[in-house]
Amino acid sequence: MSLTVSQAKDELYALQKKLSAYEHAMGVIYYDGSTTAPKGTAENRAQSLSVLSEEVYKYSTSENTVELLEFLDSNKDELNEKEKRMVYLLLKDLREMKKIPMEEYIEYEQLLVLADDVWHKAKEESNFELFCPYLEKIFEFNKKFAKYVEPEKDPYEYCLSKYEEGLTKATLDEFFKKLRDSIVPLLKRISEVEQVDDSIRHGFFAEKDQEAFSYFLMEAIGLDLDHVGLSTTEHPFTTSLGSHLDERITTHYFEDDFACSMYSVIHEGGHALYDTGSARDLAFTVLDGGTSMSIHESQSRFYENIIGRSKPFCEYIFPYLCKFFPEQMKGRTAEELYKAVNKAEPSLIRTEADEVTYSLHVMIRYELEKRVMAGEIEVKDLPKEWNRMYKEYLGIDVPDDKHGVLQDSHWSGGLVGYFPSYALGNAYGAQFLDKMKKTVDVDKCVAEGNLKPINDWNRENIWVHGSLYTPQQILDRVLGEKFNADYYIEYLNNKCKDVYGL
Amino acid sequence: MSLTVSQAKDELYALQKKLSAYEHAMGVIYYDGSTTAPKGTAENRAQSLSVLSEEVYKYSTSENTVELLEFLDSNKDELNEKEKRMVYLLLKDLREMKKIPMEEYIEYEQLLVLADDVWHKAKEESNFELFCPYLEKIFEFNKKFAKYVEPEKDPYEYCLSKYEEGLTKATLDEFFKKLRDSIVPLLKRISEVEQVDDSIRHGFFAEKDQEAFSYFLMEAIGLDLDHVGLSTTEHPFTTSLGSHLDERITTHYFEDDFACSMYSVIHEGGHALYDTGSARDLAFTVLDGGTSMSIHESQSRFYENIIGRSKPFCEYIFPYLCKFFPEQMKGRTAEELYKAVNKAEPSLIRTEADEVTYSLHVMIRYELEKRVMAGEIEVKDLPKEWNRMYKEYLGIDVPDDKHGVLQDSHWSGGLVGYFPSYALGNAYGAQFLDKMKKTVDVDKCVAEGNLKPINDWNRENIWVHGSLYTPQQILDRVLGEKFNADYYIEYLNNKCKDVYGL
Repeated sequence: MSLTVSQAKDELYALQKKLSAYEHAMGVIYYDGSTTAPKGTAENRAQSLSVLSEEVYKYSTSENTVELLEFLDSNKDELNEKEKRMVYLLLKDLREMKKIPMEEYIEYEQLLVLADDVWHKAKEESNFELFCPYLEKIFEFNKKFAKYVEPEKDPYEYCLSKYEEGLTKATLDEFFKKLRDSIVPLLKRISEVEQVDDSIRHGFFAEKDQEAFSYFLMEAIGLDLDHVGLSTTEHPFTTSLGSHLDERITTHYFEDDFACSMYSVIHEGGHALYDTGSARDLAFTVLDGGTSMSIHESQSRFYENIIGRSKPFCEYIFPYLCKFFPEQMKGRTAEELYKAVNKAEPSLIRTEADEVTYSLHVMIRYELEKRVMAGEIEVKDLPKEWNRMYKEYLGIDVPDDKHGVLQDSHWSGGLVGYFPSYALGNAYGAQFLDKMKKTVDVDKCVAEGNLKPINDWNRENIWVHGSLYTPQQILDRVLGEKFNADYYIEYLNNKCKDVYGL
Repeated sequence: MSLTVSQAKDELYALQKKLSAYEHAMGVIYYDGSTTAPKGTAENRAQSLSVLSEEVYKYSTSENTVELLEFLDSNKDELNEKEKRMVYLLLKDLREMKKIPMEEYIEYEQLLVLADDVWHKAKEESNFELFCPYLEKIFEFNKKFAKYVEPEKDPYEYCLSKYEEGLTKATLDEFFKKLRDSIVPLLKRISEVEQVDDSIRHGFFAEKDQEAFSYFLMEAIGLDLDHVGLSTTEHPFTTSLGSHLDERITTHYFEDDFACSMYSVIHEGGHALYDTGSARDLAFTVLDGGTSMSIHESQSRFYENIIGRSKPFCEYIFPYLCKFFPEQMKGRTAEELYKAVNKAEPSLIRTEADEVTYSLHVMIRYELEKRVMAGEIEVKDLPKEWNRMYKEYLGIDVPDDKHGVLQDSHWSGGLVGYFPSYALGNAYGAQFLDKMKKTVDVDKCVAEGNLKPINDWNRENIWVHGSLYTPQQILDRVLGEKFNADYYIEYLNNKCKDVYGL
């Protein structure tokens, strides 16, 4: 290499700036596809995305890039902590990418655009058969890629590791068993006492008014609206465009229930807080944004549930809710709101599930993915298996695939192995809360609508680092003890005690 | 070159596909910036756009590209008509681009993103000083680029030629003189008779209802909503994303006047009809979409005015207007609509100007650009000169820069030399109409709401060719005689006779 280390460092930043621009381009094409694009334009997007992903592939795996990164890697001593991590992550990606044939990589990118389009139609029509051939290919690609990259590893564990480094089936089997063994009896006890009244959620809440309330909520949890946008999509999500300086969240409004969108906004807002909390100098580098999906979900579900469904938050937000929906809230109380948004009962839709049943929804997806990836069941059997497990664990009948196997956008987006992040995130969040409470009077802050001390704690401990540390390092640094799902189980038990008097 | 001609042709299509993907990426980043992005994100977009435009520059001017195009150029005989034109246009662009230093090209791209952002703020605050330094730089870049590319040519004529090949100041001076000499006396005669009543336009028209009406209008003029989207922006525009298979138009709603957005939608819809009317096999090539801005404006203003403000159209649309706005249209008539949307009187805003005064708005912008580019006036003097000319030609006082020099987005977008297209387009449109009427009963079709024969005529004669022919070739092929502004002047006189009895 004819460069000095200092020149190579400049090249390293230029490389990341370039990758960020491509991410921005491809991200905004996807985002546009979900939010704004006319419905006949998916193939047009697929065409452009295939070109752009080919560019990224070629550039990321070019001889120049390899040489640069290996040169920097062999001069580690002259790199600071951040630069070392950048080189490590880029080299890891590069080595993985080089093992996947370019044509297959591009074919997969194109497939995902079309699959997303077909999934929307299939969901609308509740027609799994329409989506099935695409989903089969998606799983096939995931198996193939796993074999290319880590032939020794279990293919599903390869998928899991993309979202949470080193995560194994054994860990998850144990984790979900622990949750199942606590939650199933808890649900049984709830079914034996009087159910709470959630009529406060229902009525007519015009989309326009809900949208205004969404912006209020975004500011209430501390988002900077100059850098975080809101749109409407079939399925809520969060994405950074280019860097954490331009973050977008989306929601979905149901005019007969304001709480659905309310908690989607707070959930996605939690993701956006994490991303936009990255240190400014991480922008346009691979360290920008959250370190893993489980840590991400620990933040989104922390704001959605631990904060958003707490009694102090309900008491704080209720007077504002009355301002946005004066007619609908007439004669209602904060206590009614608190009980309604914590009503625990088996239901069909994961994103709208209560805290108690939520992890069972995730567990079912985990079990199904695991078995498809292991070749134990076929993709075409997913609806049947899905419905069987919903009956077994949640005791409910799935009326159609729209409310069953077609409900989530993850598989059409290629996110095989992602789901367990949600359940892990829940559990991490409860343990973070325990730690936070040692220095922050969380309940008092929330009751006053002053989330700053809470956000500051999360920012300093988690957000500001972006992807500088591995998820395990974040846990070690923040917790100072091993991860333990008991905090979460205790949290759930306390919530049920409070809401149901159990 | 080690390729065969046939291989080189494949490369030619691959090159264009790649350029289309970058255009898609950059186009959607701009589009997102105008429609959806949070307001603090312009710098983030500028960062990504600078990277992407550098990529396009490097790729377009690479040795491989030059070699490929020159090889094909030297084997012209083996190319079909379309391929010859592709090679010609790509080589022309390439040779121009190579004369502009890459750093300056990128700096300019970045400047435009920031300028657009600042222009929005400046317009909001009616603060020209805020925008002035950016506009100065934009004019400077335009002068510099003109000198780089065609040092012998007048810099403003270089700018004009970007939108209409071969257009000269002499042609435009004569054209605008002809218009001025007819329009100014016409306006005087109108001022001496009773003004028409346009109260039907005014009242309260909720944005939501106007939006629904917009979609109706789009379908009424023959747009395919599967491939043409609608958004709301400060300034209406039309853009293709990647290819004519994904077209977007935008509008701006004023709740006290439905006709503003109505005619913006039809105008932008005309652009979209032209773009989406390209032959399918032109997609992802440089021949996709309209051939010049004047021909483009001939289509947009044809639908907006010649069709949209005709008596048969007003009669056709009125019953639908009554469905969308039943309260507001109570007791109104189609005749009132026809007169209201043809009311001619001097006004401040170009996009809302009537047909008679419209060309004077354009002429003022032409005169100002011409003089700034010639160094006869400075950018900082634009507000003063603008206001002086509005007084001189339209007889009105400009109250502030928001309603004056800051009203249009063209300069902040770098489109110096674009404005004359609008006036030329008007005049082309009137001459096309004369031709069309020889085979199509235009009035009858419009009265029946059956635009198909009209669209088919435009499609066969103009749209389907994309950029295969130069604007002059299109005129020659369609008209079979020389361009003549008299058709337009006669059209205006007839309209005024009908509306004002002059």
